[in-house]
Amino acid sequence: MIQHVMMGIGLTLMLAVSTMAQEQPLATSVSSTRQADPLGSWNDGPTKAAILQFVQDVTKEGGPKFVLPEQRIATFDQDGTLWCEQPVVQFEFAVYRIKAMAGDHPGWKEQEPYKSVLAGDVQRLVDDLLSGGHEILKVIETSHAGMSVEEFDRHVRDFFATAKHPKLKVAYTHLAYAPMVELLAYLRANGFKTYICSGGGIDFMRAISEETYGIVPENVIGTNGRNEFKQVDGKWQLFKTADHLFFNDKATKPTGIDLHIGRKPIFAGGNVRSGGDIGMLTYCHSNTLPSFQLLVNHDDDKREFAYAEKDNASLKQAKAQGWNVVNMKSDWKTIFSND
Amino acid sequence: MIQHVMMGIGLTLMLAVSTMAQEQPLATSVSSTRQADPLGSWNDGPTKAAILQFVQDVTKEGGPKFVLPEQRIATFDQDGTLWCEQPVVQFEFAVYRIKAMAGDHPGWKEQEPYKSVLAGDVQRLVDDLLSGGHEILKVIETSHAGMSVEEFDRHVRDFFATAKHPKLKVAYTHLAYAPMVELLAYLRANGFKTYICSGGGIDFMRAISEETYGIVPENVIGTNGRNEFKQVDGKWQLFKTADHLFFNDKATKPTGIDLHIGRKPIFAGGNVRSGGDIGMLTYCHSNTLPSFQLLVNHDDDKREFAYAEKDNASLKQAKAQGWNVVNMKSDWKTIFSND
Repeated sequence: MIQHVMMGIGLTLMLAVSTMAQEQPLATSVSSTRQADPLGSWNDGPTKAAILQFVQDVTKEGGPKFVLPEQRIATFDQDGTLWCEQPVVQFEFAVYRIKAMAGDHPGWKEQEPYKSVLAGDVQRLVDDLLSGGHEILKVIETSHAGMSVEEFDRHVRDFFATAKHPKLKVAYTHLAYAPMVELLAYLRANGFKTYICSGGGIDFMRAISEETYGIVPENVIGTNGRNEFKQVDGKWQLFKTADHLFFNDKATKPTGIDLHIGRKPIFAGGNVRSGGDIGMLTYCHSNTLPSFQLLVNHDDDKREFAYAEKDNASLKQAKAQGWNVVNMKSDWKTIFSND
Repeated sequence: MIQHVMMGIGLTLMLAVSTMAQEQPLATSVSSTRQADPLGSWNDGPTKAAILQFVQDVTKEGGPKFVLPEQRIATFDQDGTLWCEQPVVQFEFAVYRIKAMAGDHPGWKEQEPYKSVLAGDVQRLVDDLLSGGHEILKVIETSHAGMSVEEFDRHVRDFFATAKHPKLKVAYTHLAYAPMVELLAYLRANGFKTYICSGGGIDFMRAISEETYGIVPENVIGTNGRNEFKQVDGKWQLFKTADHLFFNDKATKPTGIDLHIGRKPIFAGGNVRSGGDIGMLTYCHSNTLPSFQLLVNHDDDKREFAYAEKDNASLKQAKAQGWNVVNMKSDWKTIFSND
């Protein structure tokens, strides 16, 4: 709780600094010694320098790379890009809900996929998903649909108020990456609109996006079913369904971005794990305006977790297309805001 | 063209006035004689007074009806609410495209629904749609899908640059209602985010929403297919499809609003014709925050068009629920900005 409050204060301070930066535009050459560093959680190096240079270029009125404020759209994956994905938080929430619901469903003990979930074997479902299986969808549907959006929101908030990361022993919202929260605030202070574009459920992320990242609900793009507006007990309510499920991942991220925003991003951030962000970064890179692609590489097994893709597809694309790779170990001075 | 420029100037002036209104908050009792009237195109009367009172209430910090700026969401239907829907502009665009494409499809002359379209009999398709038919979907799919979003956008812009209303002989974008353009600007000046939420196609509306209403593309909610990101001729592009078609109308408008915004509106505007906005106004009315519902009634056959619903469902709901009805004849001083 104290950490949470401190994080809130940190965010407020950052926003204050950013507002100052907006009122006193960056000088032509960025000098971190002469003013507060807007990316203080980043180590100096080529990635940080490239970000600062890009923002300076697109905000310089009359400059060759100037981009109008309304076109400054930035989209970010969440899991592994904005916060820790070991384990994937939403799967932990699904398990939490299945366990809470199990009392009313005694048959689940012998019935897959619930049996594995109740026995704590979530990895089996994650492996299945990564190999193209859909067993987890049943779990997601049971835990995420068939209730009003308000009821779902209450479940999500209850989860975040009580659950802790199994290894790091802090609330999941404390596992947002400080350098990325800082980057989001820095972009907003420079006229960008910042969005989450994730494979995570849209309603799940919206419950914490504003408090955690300063990202308002209307700027969250994610996996969703087609909800149904109907009268229940004499009251019109919006009910969650898994009908026409839209899985916002890989090649469908551009579809989600176009549906929600209607403009191509000029800044996109994703991470190495499943190749899930290659589509979004490619889409961003196809922008005819100046654009910036950021790929987070998880190489820090001491402060976070180290893992790679089987085929290294994301890093290969980054090299081929000239995207900027963030190596957490060397590029980030701090990982979590409570470090 | 001159009218268009004048409309642009009018909008700029309105925005300037609105900004002044924001800097100098409305006095406790609204006095239109003592300051610029933010709703000058509206006649004095109960509807105008109710709008001004509502905005004053929700923006009064510390007042009993104060609503935080981030919760000030306003959603508006387009056809018949923000601009003229006699005829429905997007159907005219579909006809324009079918005619342009007909040279490559000689068989269409004998093939329905194209045959009717090419013969100019669009009313048959509109009647079919209003009785629950789907013939028009084939026309919409042919004219709206199977091309990149950029190509579609070019077609829409070409249409608006050349097409004129058959009776009023002006460009369709000149048929936005001046009192509603003014209301949108007034709401934005008071911290609202204004959205279009229409049965119209999302990409179709986005091509003109910013210039016509000051509504940015990301604030447009509409009918859409699930677009596909794919490589064509070695270039990654987003292609329009009619797959998983989401028709944003009637009871699905709350679905669209929740997907795009994730908050209930506190202000919603629709119109009498097909009952298409009852769902959105009901959803807005279910907000636990103070809320305002506006229903435009087309009763002015001299300056616009007079028409009603067969069953009067919208007006009946308005009466039962206490929604505010705009009678165009008596409530609007001007209809179009070039009157």
